[in-house]
Amino acid sequence: MIHFKKLTILIAAVGIYLSASAQSDSVVLSSFFETALTQNKAYADLHDLCEKVGPRLSGSEGAAKAVVLTQQLLKNAGTDTVWLQDVMVPHWVRGNKEEAYYSLEPGSKTISTVRSCALGGSIPTPKGGTTAEVVEVHGLSELSKLAPAVVKGKIVFYNGAFDQSEMETFNAYSKAGPQRWFGAVEAARYGAVGVLVRSMAQHVDEWPHTGSMDYNDSIVKIPAVAISTKDAEELSKVLMTNTHLLFTFKTYCQTLPDVKSANVIGEIRGTEYPDEVIVIGGHLDSWDLAEGAQDDGAGVVQAIEVIRLYKTLGIKPKRTIRVVAFMNEENGLRGGTEYARQARQNKERYIAAIESDAGGFTPRGFTLDVTPQLRAQIQAKWKPLLDKFEIGDLDNDGAGADVGPLKDICPLLAELHPDSQRYFDYHHSARDVFENVNDRELEMGAAAMASFVYLLDRYGLPH
Amino acid sequence: MIHFKKLTILIAAVGIYLSASAQSDSVVLSSFFETALTQNKAYADLHDLCEKVGPRLSGSEGAAKAVVLTQQLLKNAGTDTVWLQDVMVPHWVRGNKEEAYYSLEPGSKTISTVRSCALGGSIPTPKGGTTAEVVEVHGLSELSKLAPAVVKGKIVFYNGAFDQSEMETFNAYSKAGPQRWFGAVEAARYGAVGVLVRSMAQHVDEWPHTGSMDYNDSIVKIPAVAISTKDAEELSKVLMTNTHLLFTFKTYCQTLPDVKSANVIGEIRGTEYPDEVIVIGGHLDSWDLAEGAQDDGAGVVQAIEVIRLYKTLGIKPKRTIRVVAFMNEENGLRGGTEYARQARQNKERYIAAIESDAGGFTPRGFTLDVTPQLRAQIQAKWKPLLDKFEIGDLDNDGAGADVGPLKDICPLLAELHPDSQRYFDYHHSARDVFENVNDRELEMGAAAMASFVYLLDRYGLPH
Repeated sequence: MIHFKKLTILIAAVGIYLSASAQSDSVVLSSFFETALTQNKAYADLHDLCEKVGPRLSGSEGAAKAVVLTQQLLKNAGTDTVWLQDVMVPHWVRGNKEEAYYSLEPGSKTISTVRSCALGGSIPTPKGGTTAEVVEVHGLSELSKLAPAVVKGKIVFYNGAFDQSEMETFNAYSKAGPQRWFGAVEAARYGAVGVLVRSMAQHVDEWPHTGSMDYNDSIVKIPAVAISTKDAEELSKVLMTNTHLLFTFKTYCQTLPDVKSANVIGEIRGTEYPDEVIVIGGHLDSWDLAEGAQDDGAGVVQAIEVIRLYKTLGIKPKRTIRVVAFMNEENGLRGGTEYARQARQNKERYIAAIESDAGGFTPRGFTLDVTPQLRAQIQAKWKPLLDKFEIGDLDNDGAGADVGPLKDICPLLAELHPDSQRYFDYHHSARDVFENVNDRELEMGAAAMASFVYLLDRYGLPH
Repeated sequence: MIHFKKLTILIAAVGIYLSASAQSDSVVLSSFFETALTQNKAYADLHDLCEKVGPRLSGSEGAAKAVVLTQQLLKNAGTDTVWLQDVMVPHWVRGNKEEAYYSLEPGSKTISTVRSCALGGSIPTPKGGTTAEVVEVHGLSELSKLAPAVVKGKIVFYNGAFDQSEMETFNAYSKAGPQRWFGAVEAARYGAVGVLVRSMAQHVDEWPHTGSMDYNDSIVKIPAVAISTKDAEELSKVLMTNTHLLFTFKTYCQTLPDVKSANVIGEIRGTEYPDEVIVIGGHLDSWDLAEGAQDDGAGVVQAIEVIRLYKTLGIKPKRTIRVVAFMNEENGLRGGTEYARQARQNKERYIAAIESDAGGFTPRGFTLDVTPQLRAQIQAKWKPLLDKFEIGDLDNDGAGADVGPLKDICPLLAELHPDSQRYFDYHHSARDVFENVNDRELEMGAAAMASFVYLLDRYGLPH
């Protein structure tokens, strides 16, 4: 069933320590990598998604265009069937470009401007902006130790930086993230009138990074913006000697009525167990500041590439391999939620659901959301083979947000685990553009996805 | 002997599957990564080497400055002793900027310019340049099939591209490299008057990449230049319909008398076995087109950082850890050769020699030049621990060029094995500058070096 152009070369590349079946598996995995790197089609798809569509925030025209394009990309890759699954999504819009600045004295004409962007879902400032003194903290717990009188009427400035000692930048994100996610609610409890959040970024640079935030219907809503890490450092320095400086920010965002959108789905049916589904995917929506190349155009085109690799190499899966380009991961998770709802309703059977939503960087392995027993079995059975391709890191917990709602009906949730060092230079900022994706790193991620899918499809879950 | 600032945090990070001693080793390795990432000193050293010194081709003023600076960096890092080891090195200079162009008809005023640079060590063209028709081939074996009459009096254009199907870009380099290394000699055998070589680069772009080339004293020497991959593709296209186009290139390079230079060496002496040496290093010289940030400023500062990590963490090695910043890797290997000559003469005892000369990218493991038995023992003993830090790939053969001459007196030669996907975007071109090094990737490479050194020092060679 498998057609190899370069069988002799591939066999020569196979490690000598593998069993016979692992050897033939190694040949297949080699061919995934070789083919992905030479046909370079995922990169071409990403080019189209970024350059022909661009930003794809849920509810936007870009998101609608992306739904149309992605159906075509799935067909081009060789799926048997492509369909849409309707989803109602939030429709938040940024409006005019934000302004933010401060002066050291009331009425002073000398102002310092600050690079900022509204957080996704934020209410706008009142007309004329929000102006107040600033209280700097480095996280929610530091805020919780302040007397309410210190915060009341002020703008809370969350300036907690990424912990550079974390090897995995996603761990640094998890630690700093609560400022952005819950900062407005917590500041409002104390009577603050607005929130500035240091951008969730690895380096000190000039780019504000947006991202989602929560409100709580029982707490007054206050507007929130992210400011660049460089401006955050500067503001912090100025605050040391100018505790009463006046900060103003103006945002124009609003939440419009929900919009009908869709998950885009395509599959190749299994030859032996067509009712057993392996889901792979990424999320089709992006933030509005850039093309969402790493987050998560990369994941979408990698999942599509898995289909193309199967078709190019003439491999017919035993089980059904289904690509889902989820809508609305960034600010609602409506796509992932609706997909899982229908899957349960239709009593579908799942083997695995694997998302790619950590960027198109060189793959290292997969994070897994599985029982300890299943993890140990997967490691025992497949790690040596995956290690040959430097994708054998299976130690970490976690799975993509979109596949999370499948947890009760799918024994294996996972996420492609790429190198994360550069991700937060781009994430949610205007720098998340096509040019900042390396074609080879992207394609290797697709081949890694295909490799894991291949093992799951050929052998089922290890036990 | 080990002082931890954050012992409790570090212990919490240790995997639960490791033995007791592996657990304490894991704590040390964690601390290497954490400390390297937070103190970020290797990156500061690289900044100085790139920005205060710049290009450091053997025999140049930059190389002499680098020798002075590196002594200081080694002292700053906390070495017990720093010294120079004199080495006579070649002194090739590029001279004026090269020119290269072609016209479709003799005497035509319409010319197409080509981005080029002389290969290192090339003789210059005659005054007025070398002008001839072009014969395109894709490698040495294709040349060998041509009739001498086809080549005689022509310029041979080697246009063999990198094999994109290679996961390891160094393998693609090894396959395309002979065109550059031996292309002039082989073309001259057939009577060619000059050589154009497609740059050794991963992508199609506008940057010519220099690098070393060989002559053979029994074959006439002809001048050789690299041209950008984009220009190579364009030239190839034009040649399809204009087989008689006239190509001209002018180079002004020359080889001056040898110059006295030096390997820069610093060490911390072992507490128990001071006569057993673990060498770590990179090469201090670079090509002349850029700052040699990835090749190999990164390796030099990573080796220095290993010393600093030991000092910062208060770890006293049992064996002597010696940093060597080798001179003249790029066009002569005089530093590595002289170092090994003196090591043999002085009957020094070596445990291991580990170079970093594959760029400051996220580490994946180490290539090893060892017996199969020793490789198996190292893998059995240390791979699980190294895997926790995603540096457990120990499958590949090879070691840094500079440590190669130690082979007969050192049982373990190795090289840091970083992710290689972006290396040949920069290598030997004007793009190899400080800005193209990611601080975290660089520092993680230093921590990986320290980790391997730590295990070798603490336990000796496994057996």
